[in-house]
Amino acid sequence: MDFTRRHALTSAAALAATPLLPVLPVKAAAPVAGKQNAGFYRYKVGDAEVSVVSDGSLTVPLPDGLITNAKKDEVAAALEKAFRPRDTMTFYFGPLVVNTGGKLIVIDTGNGPATFASSKGAAGQFASNLAAAGIDAKAVDMVVISHFHGDHVNGLLTADGQPAFPNAEVLVPSVEWKYWMDDGEMSRAPAGRMEGLFKNNRRVFEAGLKKKVTPYEWGKDVVPGLRAVETIGHTPGHTSYVLSSGPDTVFIQSDVTNNPEPFARNPDWQASFDQDGPQAVKTRRKVYDMLAADRMRVQGFHYPFPGLANIEKDGTGYRWVPAPWNPSI
Amino acid sequence: MDFTRRHALTSAAALAATPLLPVLPVKAAAPVAGKQNAGFYRYKVGDAEVSVVSDGSLTVPLPDGLITNAKKDEVAAALEKAFRPRDTMTFYFGPLVVNTGGKLIVIDTGNGPATFASSKGAAGQFASNLAAAGIDAKAVDMVVISHFHGDHVNGLLTADGQPAFPNAEVLVPSVEWKYWMDDGEMSRAPAGRMEGLFKNNRRVFEAGLKKKVTPYEWGKDVVPGLRAVETIGHTPGHTSYVLSSGPDTVFIQSDVTNNPEPFARNPDWQASFDQDGPQAVKTRRKVYDMLAADRMRVQGFHYPFPGLANIEKDGTGYRWVPAPWNPSI
Repeated sequence: MDFTRRHALTSAAALAATPLLPVLPVKAAAPVAGKQNAGFYRYKVGDAEVSVVSDGSLTVPLPDGLITNAKKDEVAAALEKAFRPRDTMTFYFGPLVVNTGGKLIVIDTGNGPATFASSKGAAGQFASNLAAAGIDAKAVDMVVISHFHGDHVNGLLTADGQPAFPNAEVLVPSVEWKYWMDDGEMSRAPAGRMEGLFKNNRRVFEAGLKKKVTPYEWGKDVVPGLRAVETIGHTPGHTSYVLSSGPDTVFIQSDVTNNPEPFARNPDWQASFDQDGPQAVKTRRKVYDMLAADRMRVQGFHYPFPGLANIEKDGTGYRWVPAPWNPSI
Repeated sequence: MDFTRRHALTSAAALAATPLLPVLPVKAAAPVAGKQNAGFYRYKVGDAEVSVVSDGSLTVPLPDGLITNAKKDEVAAALEKAFRPRDTMTFYFGPLVVNTGGKLIVIDTGNGPATFASSKGAAGQFASNLAAAGIDAKAVDMVVISHFHGDHVNGLLTADGQPAFPNAEVLVPSVEWKYWMDDGEMSRAPAGRMEGLFKNNRRVFEAGLKKKVTPYEWGKDVVPGLRAVETIGHTPGHTSYVLSSGPDTVFIQSDVTNNPEPFARNPDWQASFDQDGPQAVKTRRKVYDMLAADRMRVQGFHYPFPGLANIEKDGTGYRWVPAPWNPSI
């Protein structure tokens, strides 16, 4: 007998009339496993094209004191309710590239190549996903920064401290710029996280970018079609955006909430990374009430990829309804 | 003056101290737009690796009579509530490739290359997304079919009617096989859709595959770790699966519901494509009660990509909670 593969299959087919006989298929080579799809996703806002380009994610043990006005057990219970593990928290990072009117605009830059090197590639994927999306960092015209936390600004620099977008103008909220560059504010910053943030911003903007930035103002278009909106609380100059083209709009929220589970479901929780907790709650409720009432799409930097959703009210909080993945564009 | 790009940017930076001056960045080449990311996504179930490999989607005007026991306006309202357009329905198609124990198993095959050629590539993407995922159709050991509707079986054949997975054994539910291959059932089929389905199945399984299939039975493992589960109603032999590896499981529902919005939210709706509407409702409630009670993950063929979710009860229906996209694996 010839035990070629074709023969074995023909035999198996011949056995089909007796379906309960065990089937022992011939082993074929399995593909190399373990590589996830590239993290980019495209959608249109009128004539503009948005590319969500993931910087990956970071999973950490559920931190003590993550929420200053809720117990750790309450946070764990909220995570479990949302079908997440009780004992860890995963943070997602979603920079954007917007192509509007022929301009190529990056909004926020992720953690950069070095910050979470210990995550072994889980975070810090922005540059590789940009390449996968066919976007050349040298072709970027503008980088718009929403606020000066490391996961938004560290990707402004390469691993050797050079500008990651060498031909781009860097635009920053003027209030945010003044706050972090103020020597008095820096001298009053508590040791630890806040002092570290000030030092990091001096590293990025002074040593790295030589202060070559353009401050922008709230209530005005940063570039035509991209309006800056004051959404303070998370930081003193925290900024969101309304991207619009014709009648089509999306609200780019930045960090008005972190992951909607549990942060939009529990909008009154004050997270340790919100610099002014009560103001962040006030802003969050105002923005999410608007999103729900206007049925406006929202793009969340810390939403799970790709992070485009609608918002609906549910009880005392809000639910996100992720937009279905569109296989074409 | 030298109006190089570098110079222009330096000048713009020099203007930063007066932030309200208009900024006129130099135009750079924008990337080629309009190409969506490839539709594949990987996750682990214990030691097994699942690749969801999208066949794309199809958007049609909201059909009359889509739901036999609800008015078109009610369906439109349910779509609107879920932030979908009122007047169209989008159908998503999500075949799977499971790598378990060194075997490479395709579960359902999508619409094939020809069925929705008029969709201009929106549907019929399975073969191209397989290639993007690095999976060679020739390396597939087994193709497991859940039921005999065209969006599940037509991808068994290439455009010229040859087996698309030339080295694979094709496994089919024995009840489904008997039903569609029964000449009496075929002769009694109403003209139109049902007659067309019988003819299509003869084309695929007789002309294309020369009846080289292996029937499988409910309640048994089709291959170790992949158990076939009776979930009839949508078709007489409709089959779901429990994929398990160690303590880790996922319920591969096939078409117990179509898109969870609106079909899981309104589980008593009888869709025109459910061949036995009342039985489909009974099966749907039984399965979704189990998924909610056991907090078991579900993979849905017609869920929006990538289609992995949990289910929770909500009012008289069910909500899907999509699993967050994991940027690593």
